[in-house]
Amino acid sequence: MSLDPLVFCRELALEPPSPSDKTADADRLREALEKMGLPGVDIPVDIMKRLPGELRRNNFTLEAVIGRKRFPHLSACQKGTGGDDAEGLGNSGLTVLDIGKRNIFGLAVDVGSTNIECSLIDLETGEKVAAAGAENPQAKFGVDVLTRAQLSMMGKYDDLHLALLEGLNGLIRKVCDSHGKPVDEIFAFTIAGNTIMSHFAMGLDVTNIPMTPYVPAVNGPVFCGAAEIGLSGNRNALVYVFPNSGSYVGGDIISGILYSGLHREEEPALFIDVGTNVEITLGCRDWLMTGAGAAGPALEGGVAAIGKKAEKGTVSRVRIDRLSKKMDMKVISDIEPEGICGSGMIDLISELFSANIIDQRGRLVDSAEGVTEKEGSRVFMLYKSGTRELYLTEAEIQNFLLSKAAMFSFLYVFVKSVGLTFSDIHKVCIAGALGCGIDLESAINIGMLPDMPRDRFVPLGNSSLRGAEMVLRDRKLLCEVNEIAARITYREMNEDGELMNVLQGAMFLPHTEPGILKGGA
Amino acid sequence: MSLDPLVFCRELALEPPSPSDKTADADRLREALEKMGLPGVDIPVDIMKRLPGELRRNNFTLEAVIGRKRFPHLSACQKGTGGDDAEGLGNSGLTVLDIGKRNIFGLAVDVGSTNIECSLIDLETGEKVAAAGAENPQAKFGVDVLTRAQLSMMGKYDDLHLALLEGLNGLIRKVCDSHGKPVDEIFAFTIAGNTIMSHFAMGLDVTNIPMTPYVPAVNGPVFCGAAEIGLSGNRNALVYVFPNSGSYVGGDIISGILYSGLHREEEPALFIDVGTNVEITLGCRDWLMTGAGAAGPALEGGVAAIGKKAEKGTVSRVRIDRLSKKMDMKVISDIEPEGICGSGMIDLISELFSANIIDQRGRLVDSAEGVTEKEGSRVFMLYKSGTRELYLTEAEIQNFLLSKAAMFSFLYVFVKSVGLTFSDIHKVCIAGALGCGIDLESAINIGMLPDMPRDRFVPLGNSSLRGAEMVLRDRKLLCEVNEIAARITYREMNEDGELMNVLQGAMFLPHTEPGILKGGA
Repeated sequence: MSLDPLVFCRELALEPPSPSDKTADADRLREALEKMGLPGVDIPVDIMKRLPGELRRNNFTLEAVIGRKRFPHLSACQKGTGGDDAEGLGNSGLTVLDIGKRNIFGLAVDVGSTNIECSLIDLETGEKVAAAGAENPQAKFGVDVLTRAQLSMMGKYDDLHLALLEGLNGLIRKVCDSHGKPVDEIFAFTIAGNTIMSHFAMGLDVTNIPMTPYVPAVNGPVFCGAAEIGLSGNRNALVYVFPNSGSYVGGDIISGILYSGLHREEEPALFIDVGTNVEITLGCRDWLMTGAGAAGPALEGGVAAIGKKAEKGTVSRVRIDRLSKKMDMKVISDIEPEGICGSGMIDLISELFSANIIDQRGRLVDSAEGVTEKEGSRVFMLYKSGTRELYLTEAEIQNFLLSKAAMFSFLYVFVKSVGLTFSDIHKVCIAGALGCGIDLESAINIGMLPDMPRDRFVPLGNSSLRGAEMVLRDRKLLCEVNEIAARITYREMNEDGELMNVLQGAMFLPHTEPGILKGGA
Repeated sequence: MSLDPLVFCRELALEPPSPSDKTADADRLREALEKMGLPGVDIPVDIMKRLPGELRRNNFTLEAVIGRKRFPHLSACQKGTGGDDAEGLGNSGLTVLDIGKRNIFGLAVDVGSTNIECSLIDLETGEKVAAAGAENPQAKFGVDVLTRAQLSMMGKYDDLHLALLEGLNGLIRKVCDSHGKPVDEIFAFTIAGNTIMSHFAMGLDVTNIPMTPYVPAVNGPVFCGAAEIGLSGNRNALVYVFPNSGSYVGGDIISGILYSGLHREEEPALFIDVGTNVEITLGCRDWLMTGAGAAGPALEGGVAAIGKKAEKGTVSRVRIDRLSKKMDMKVISDIEPEGICGSGMIDLISELFSANIIDQRGRLVDSAEGVTEKEGSRVFMLYKSGTRELYLTEAEIQNFLLSKAAMFSFLYVFVKSVGLTFSDIHKVCIAGALGCGIDLESAINIGMLPDMPRDRFVPLGNSSLRGAEMVLRDRKLLCEVNEIAARITYREMNEDGELMNVLQGAMFLPHTEPGILKGGA
């Protein structure tokens, strides 16, 4: 693991002043840093205030926490000077953030529409020492980000912004408490989120993002002070917000691509971020193309009445014996089941289909095991004990099939639109957890993912958070991030005629044209 | 007058976004600035917050206030890149400070131990639009800066710092009110003061300055935000604090030298700042040497009971007819005289000497016009009417002679120490007002200034403030200031044996060895 973090610490032993060397304290520190290969480091006034006392208390030895306040512009990256200490621009904007003995931590943050997650990284070892997650408090205003942008236009911006900020600061306290560390030991933040969430996190105007011609306030990247945007941390902590590549391709995707390595592949590969929206990036080291489409919240288990996120009491896996039709469920924490998450739902539909409990159209088969009636409609009873009943209606199954169909169709048409078929794709990175991680066989069995050699699939988990962790640990990646953002082209898919055709067939299990699952037509 | 101010305004007409150009607002602004020859300008988050609304209200035209947040390091100056927009480093640290239609003003500040003075400069025209002054509120803690540094060591630092800050902010309000301008139209400050006053102005530790080896917290220069040091102004206003050249040579001297042009002279010249301390810089474009010595407050009119600063009712000029011994006084505002200022005192002593009312030793001549007795001692009655009596005692005259002697001796020994005589000095710049401006003939007549051709003397007034105004108007001078600071050497004079010898003779009027006044021995 390469460790060249955004914020680092230097131990300095300065020559004490003497009658023949009356160099002032701050100038003395600056000269010592220059001798270490760090010329032109800024020393803010609040550090100068503490410097004389700190130096004399410790006999002119000092630990200095140093960070980068300005970002390498793309042009600097292209010249190869942005990440290199030895060259002029590489140190432009280095600043002393603190002095004295400190632990230095960085916090990588994924600001998702539904959940916010973070990892606390020890920047001296590169180790992840703690992690935490929470619901995005904005969710109570509206599940999807466009609703939130619309609410902002109607005067609700401050409420939404404050809710997110409080959520983030709560999460920061939580992750620090969990590791017994004071919040002011966080000196750097890396933040990845979709375009609207990144804007909310910085307190930027979102109202023009959902309106033609869909122009964000900034595509970035943005470097700023944590204090400037209201985040808890060291008073001089720095924040890096991943760049967006326009309104549609957010920093979360760019961070995810960084983690996936898609931009370095020699052969075409896919990066799929599965969620309420499905975001797909196809490409390799020569080109990157992103498209996005709505798949519907059904994939996340969010539509069925028994849908639930992955937590205590959630069904995460389902198996049904083909012969005995006996059902076996994995429940988180092994307690009585209370609901089912996205990945559990994929399993459930796949198993119901394989056990002939639902047909190719997703209709429940009369008198099949577990099929019963509730309020005049057929339902599948997943669990029943005492007064507790967990069941799935036919309408909910249809909803799910629509989502899986949307996802597959989108994937198929997208790959085809650049003249490729699934067989040309040598790697499929799947980001987004969908609860507890997709079971590949189930997903392929229902025709949600293409039927490709299994070893080409790589599950990534929360790749947006992983990419944010990477940049905390290695500032040289800032240039790589800029390059990814600059190379991505966005492909508008919403009005594609073929999409609707493929979608019709994909509503079936696994598809009306099985060949299509391998990339044929 | 060259106008290339620290903060400037640019009018921009941006191409509005369209379906074929979805560049984000901040990136669009950055690109437009780059096209104007201003690449890499930072846009802080608080500006990004207002940018989308501002652009759309004004059909994508914008006025941007831009300033320099980082200073050119000396090395950049030496390479000639520090002041040049066309070269890389020249724009390093440029930042958008505000957007929208604004007037932009800069405030030059001279933070003197006794008085603080400022000039409000319109940065779009370079014009000085208002000026104001006030007593330094720290004076009530102690007249001289060393006392204040000692009080700081005894726990009084915060009181002293706060007093100065309130004084400065009061002055800022006053000068803005006088011109009917809101304080938030000030976008740049240049601050010149001696080393201790500069430190107080920034809130920096002063306790090591008066203790061996006399090390300041910073020699600077310092660039920071006005908000960082508590100054009123625009929330993003920038502050430039002149560098010191060690504990003894403050930013006020360096600023004064900049204004005097001493550092560009081809032949040796003198820059004298007359006050409680006399600070002398001798040199030319090849070398600069500074020394300082205590002259005593008598020169400022501060010791005699009738001493008074230049204000309503102060005697500023005195003439005594050689024959009739009739006295003629100029009184500020032509009212009844209430006291006499420093320059009036120089006149008075000179005239008393020329009219034989005091002898060569400064003793009052018995029965001379105006000489009378008060409480058993001889005094000179300057003014008497009703109950008001303004008189000078012999002890006060002695005190004054000691000060003028100290000043002359110091000047003489300093010039001699580098192997020069007064006749080698082709220009003598005199800074510091001493009330209403020194009358050259009087000062030479009493032997306070050397007897040189009169056209070599150049009165400068408050040169520290003038130098601060220059930098506000022309940022290219930042490099020149760095060069002055780097070139000055300090010459310790306090223990010079010859000084005491010359001082003995200089106590007489004009001197026991008249030849010495022209530089001989």
